[in-house]
Amino acid sequence: MKKFTVVVVGVGAVGVEMIRLLEKRNFPIKELRIFARRERDIVIDNKTYHVNSISPDGFESADIALFAGTEGEKGAAVQFAHEAIKRGCIVIDNGADFRLKPDVPLVIPEINPESLKNHKGLIANPNCSTIQMVVSIYPIYKEYGIERIIVATFQSASGAGRKAEVELLSQSKEILERLEEKNIKIGDKEFLENLFTKKELEAFSFQIAFNCFPCIGSFKEFDYTSEEWKMVKETQKILNDNSLKITATCVRIPVFRSHAEAIYIETKEKFDLERVKELLRNFPGVVLIDSLVDIPQPILCAQKEPVFVGRVRRDPFNEKGLWLWCVADNLWKGAALNAVQIAELLIKENLL
Amino acid sequence: MKKFTVVVVGVGAVGVEMIRLLEKRNFPIKELRIFARRERDIVIDNKTYHVNSISPDGFESADIALFAGTEGEKGAAVQFAHEAIKRGCIVIDNGADFRLKPDVPLVIPEINPESLKNHKGLIANPNCSTIQMVVSIYPIYKEYGIERIIVATFQSASGAGRKAEVELLSQSKEILERLEEKNIKIGDKEFLENLFTKKELEAFSFQIAFNCFPCIGSFKEFDYTSEEWKMVKETQKILNDNSLKITATCVRIPVFRSHAEAIYIETKEKFDLERVKELLRNFPGVVLIDSLVDIPQPILCAQKEPVFVGRVRRDPFNEKGLWLWCVADNLWKGAALNAVQIAELLIKENLL
Repeated sequence: MKKFTVVVVGVGAVGVEMIRLLEKRNFPIKELRIFARRERDIVIDNKTYHVNSISPDGFESADIALFAGTEGEKGAAVQFAHEAIKRGCIVIDNGADFRLKPDVPLVIPEINPESLKNHKGLIANPNCSTIQMVVSIYPIYKEYGIERIIVATFQSASGAGRKAEVELLSQSKEILERLEEKNIKIGDKEFLENLFTKKELEAFSFQIAFNCFPCIGSFKEFDYTSEEWKMVKETQKILNDNSLKITATCVRIPVFRSHAEAIYIETKEKFDLERVKELLRNFPGVVLIDSLVDIPQPILCAQKEPVFVGRVRRDPFNEKGLWLWCVADNLWKGAALNAVQIAELLIKENLL
Repeated sequence: MKKFTVVVVGVGAVGVEMIRLLEKRNFPIKELRIFARRERDIVIDNKTYHVNSISPDGFESADIALFAGTEGEKGAAVQFAHEAIKRGCIVIDNGADFRLKPDVPLVIPEINPESLKNHKGLIANPNCSTIQMVVSIYPIYKEYGIERIIVATFQSASGAGRKAEVELLSQSKEILERLEEKNIKIGDKEFLENLFTKKELEAFSFQIAFNCFPCIGSFKEFDYTSEEWKMVKETQKILNDNSLKITATCVRIPVFRSHAEAIYIETKEKFDLERVKELLRNFPGVVLIDSLVDIPQPILCAQKEPVFVGRVRRDPFNEKGLWLWCVADNLWKGAALNAVQIAELLIKENLL
């Protein structure tokens, strides 16, 4: 079997999972190069990897580069993706910089593998909240059509990177310690207040421990956040359907890993609930939990590959209204796994 | 000013807030009696209160009894409400036992004060998730009409009582301690797993710390939970409008206090966004946060009286589609405060 020189750029929350998944899935690797801003050694699952400082020459003779995805002008993708492509290396970028560019395929392998065929060296990985929603709704979209989607998300701290997970952990610890030290009891006023000043906050604008807030990313048109627009525009691009109406409220909650979404779908045609469940059960990448006892939830989905879908039920007041509750590891299917799956598909389809 | 003999039944999470609010709002109290299953002293805001063991005679010559609300056959309301009423004491019950009975008014003072007039000694306090939703949507409902509501909730542990708050606290502590002891790092597999056996769970069926799950109450018709049905049926009763379509997904999140809700409204008539904000701004009991910097969130709303509404914005794809994000203290406006406000209204309207 042919083997490939693979580059991983970034060793934050997503980069580490990319390396872990390349190993776990026995990706045909000839040489693995890991780049970040700063040279160092890192340990993943008891194995030490050397991380080199990123430079254009590092992509020389490489086949595939997975960019873990710090976005924006100072991010690795904007600075180095074209250097990789220039050297014949195909880039799969997990960041948002290129996702909506017309000549960049935005790919979920289960949904639109065909769009890979026209790639020009750069392929974009969709946003975490988009991927798990599109995987969950797609079998229904295919069978009945979807008029619109109204979705509220429950997103974990890790979606904002490793430093955000650390902030959730350290804030939680500090709050519990302060309560103990001061002998503050549940229900006391001091128990309930914002315990951090703006200066003490780094990853988020608000306290994340024991709190939640509906602002992920920055505010854009119609007072939607960038995260909410991603769910709209990326879904329309992936499905190649700008008529699909999507509206979202994206909320950060104090969970370390895995996003959950309460998705309300209005189908175009009337649906049969048992058929909907059958479609979900048979769709690759989905695990249907058709149970009222076991319900998909973040702590059960971390470092698992599928998108878990549960609470599939109809709206008693709308024969075309359908609720789904989906949970997936935002760093796996929502990021690193989907990127690795794109790389696997490139190999399978001889598109390298 | 006339003063009254007031009984509070229950000294759990809600009962304590009832006592606190009676004091804070200078309720005209002649005598305050506090009952629970077990006689004891409790301390609230540095003041000691004696709690007597509940008995039918305890309601003798009392004017108003606030039942904090353990529901079901063994709950105080089912066992003692009729004993109180028999003795001429008006009962305001925070539990769910009587809310949907035709001859029991279900009251939010800002919304349907007129329904109090026909009370027969028993008045029901709506569910926490219902109250804050109805207060938030009501000015819009009055002005434009509402075709339907699609809502996802983010509900705090305290909604399941004091023991649930304790469970969130103790689980959080234990998880952080185990991570430290075993030197488990963020991103390690052990970091992400369910750390408790079913036997170790009491208040909830699932781990609540650093997790979330869409099941509050028990499962009923259409696989909706009892909590989700409460939002439907109580809202229809309060608004006296069974044509109003409501569908909900109710989710527990690891927050101690205050519920948040992402409410999607489809109005009957087209609305003007600035007018919607004006209506909310002027509605009693609502504080509109028309800002993208300060956003309503649980830690900022605990032990505050209003329902805080933010992120008021239109659906770019539906001229009748409107999002609201509302947060309120589930133990205050969602329970104890609304009950005390009902009692105040009874006095004001000479309905005792």
